Amino acid sequence: MESAIPLHLETTRMRHKRVPDDYQPPYPSFVARYKPAVSRVVMAYFGVQYRGAAPSSALEALEDIAGMFASEGGPSHWDRARYVDQAGYDTTVTVAYWDDVARFDAWFAPTREAWTGRSRDGVGTFIEVLRPTVARHETLFSSPDRPEGVAVVAEGMSGEVQEHAYWGGMRDRIPLSQTDAMAPGGAPELIRDGARLRVKAHDNLCLIRSGQDWSDTEASERKLYLDNVEPVLREGMDFLRDDGLAIGCYTNRYMKVLAADGSVSEKSYGQSWWKSLAALERWAESHPTHVRIFGAAMKYLSALGPSAKLRLYHEVTVAAADEQLFEYLNCHPKTGMLAAVVTVTA
Amino acid sequence: MESAIPLHLETTRMRHKRVPDDYQPPYPSFVARYKPAVSRVVMAYFGVQYRGAAPSSALEALEDIAGMFASEGGPSHWDRARYVDQAGYDTTVTVAYWDDVARFDAWFAPTREAWTGRSRDGVGTFIEVLRPTVARHETLFSSPDRPEGVAVVAEGMSGEVQEHAYWGGMRDRIPLSQTDAMAPGGAPELIRDGARLRVKAHDNLCLIRSGQDWSDTEASERKLYLDNVEPVLREGMDFLRDDGLAIGCYTNRYMKVLAADGSVSEKSYGQSWWKSLAALERWAESHPTHVRIFGAAMKYLSALGPSAKLRLYHEVTVAAADEQLFEYLNCHPKTGMLAAVVTVTA
Repeated sequence: MESAIPLHLETTRMRHKRVPDDYQPPYPSFVARYKPAVSRVVMAYFGVQYRGAAPSSALEALEDIAGMFASEGGPSHWDRARYVDQAGYDTTVTVAYWDDVARFDAWFAPTREAWTGRSRDGVGTFIEVLRPTVARHETLFSSPDRPEGVAVVAEGMSGEVQEHAYWGGMRDRIPLSQTDAMAPGGAPELIRDGARLRVKAHDNLCLIRSGQDWSDTEASERKLYLDNVEPVLREGMDFLRDDGLAIGCYTNRYMKVLAADGSVSEKSYGQSWWKSLAALERWAESHPTHVRIFGAAMKYLSALGPSAKLRLYHEVTVAAADEQLFEYLNCHPKTGMLAAVVTVTA
Repeated sequence: MESAIPLHLETTRMRHKRVPDDYQPPYPSFVARYKPAVSRVVMAYFGVQYRGAAPSSALEALEDIAGMFASEGGPSHWDRARYVDQAGYDTTVTVAYWDDVARFDAWFAPTREAWTGRSRDGVGTFIEVLRPTVARHETLFSSPDRPEGVAVVAEGMSGEVQEHAYWGGMRDRIPLSQTDAMAPGGAPELIRDGARLRVKAHDNLCLIRSGQDWSDTEASERKLYLDNVEPVLREGMDFLRDDGLAIGCYTNRYMKVLAADGSVSEKSYGQSWWKSLAALERWAESHPTHVRIFGAAMKYLSALGPSAKLRLYHEVTVAAADEQLFEYLNCHPKTGMLAAVVTVTA
């Protein structure tokens, strides 16, 4: 049993973790381990949206960004997912990961110009980037042999970690929680730069990507997931999408991951932006849909243990104000973090 | 909105509470407020047990203890409850409360001799006493107008408090949690004093009395409680009774409160002894039955608010080693805290 907090990020605690030192979780979980030399990671979401039939510019945009990924300085890993948002816009989000900020910066400038610096016919484009220090970030995996998302750029996976399977584990896995409450500071602001709309969020904004992979499940487990778990998950995701703002969830996307050929895979993830880690904690702990999901997962993983074929993972970041970028071009006014600000003046 | 921790017990925090200062609970709850001069409270459980038909000595015992309560130095409040324990013993527990330890001590010596100092035909008797400092103790009530248990000896009820309706609220309401993790120290030991068996437990042993009162509910709410809530509650109570030891619950009694005439009332409570507050927290947060109870209560109280007629309350103490007394005479070997020690030598 090891701590989710890597040894080189352990500090003298000003704040305690929620469980005693002899706490034993009821089932195993694992976290991504970066090389100790990695000080920051980058997660960059590139979105394209349109309504109705796909214009040819949408496919071109997707080909363009894939081409840029393949160029010098491109990401170590990327994946693509798709959903129809609350305004009925077909949205494809391509997310890419780096473990080297300098490399990302050099690569990003021309990509940014190409993505949100010029209009594409009939589509909106957006960029949402975080570049947190590793102390502001945590991951969790139900099995150690298939990394997803940012964990793919890590050196590997931990052994079994202690800080999970209880409310508060998410916070306790973030190294900064040893010394900092990570309280949010300020309110999101809109910045207009011609047609480009930027959102300047605030200190300790929180991002979660929370995924599930049922591709390895066989008949009975697959049926259990699709019939019993997924509908409850969807209900929770819909609540966040439609009614999240009142509880501190600025926006939520519940998406199907696409395979390399563009077809829908048997993986999905929810991506949501939150006012604070505390707001995410309160939702997770008290919203009936998430409580049911958590309870079901606890029961399921405690019973099946390593023989479960359903894979669950998430990554959570609490970003400092200067670790964020939100930029939208020709997007509808409730796209992503635009939902947190007023974009239309009377 | 006020803190559950009374002003005169606020100290410089070494340990943080789990929610930010601007946390707003989704429904109101209240706590008992003692006079600031009250430094300790006493909760004394007097039990009588027998198997099969009630011997006349059982009724005599109950009359005796009621008589002693009425004598000089007796409790400010007491109530009585009954259940059949896991070994099939009919058990009646009379619990009494004081807010003055000196008064209790003077009263207790002869009562103790009369209760566990001499055998009564065909019945076992036991005493379980805590006398915690008020900093080691918390209460919670869903409505402020009907105190139960220890709260009856308090001066009154608080206004709406902040620290509730989230996992960790119980700990955050205990004043000592500001500075102390309240980790358990040591293991329970059996001490034989002739036929009297005493259990010397350990530092930071935890007691919860958690009650429900459906006497004011009308048709639809009563049906909801009896058909949907009570069976789930019972399942959780049965789990603790039968399988609690492995997770740190030494013993659990789920009892019906008796009216003054000895008939069964429309109130019940669970009383359980725990290795630690942390063990109680883990059960409450992860056991499916309690998670369902908590979720149901959250939903129910959020929706109905003050118009709910079902009343819920609890009192929790984390006792220092020298604040405890457990004494059993002629009881079966799994009675109360005897379940935590080996009483029979091979």
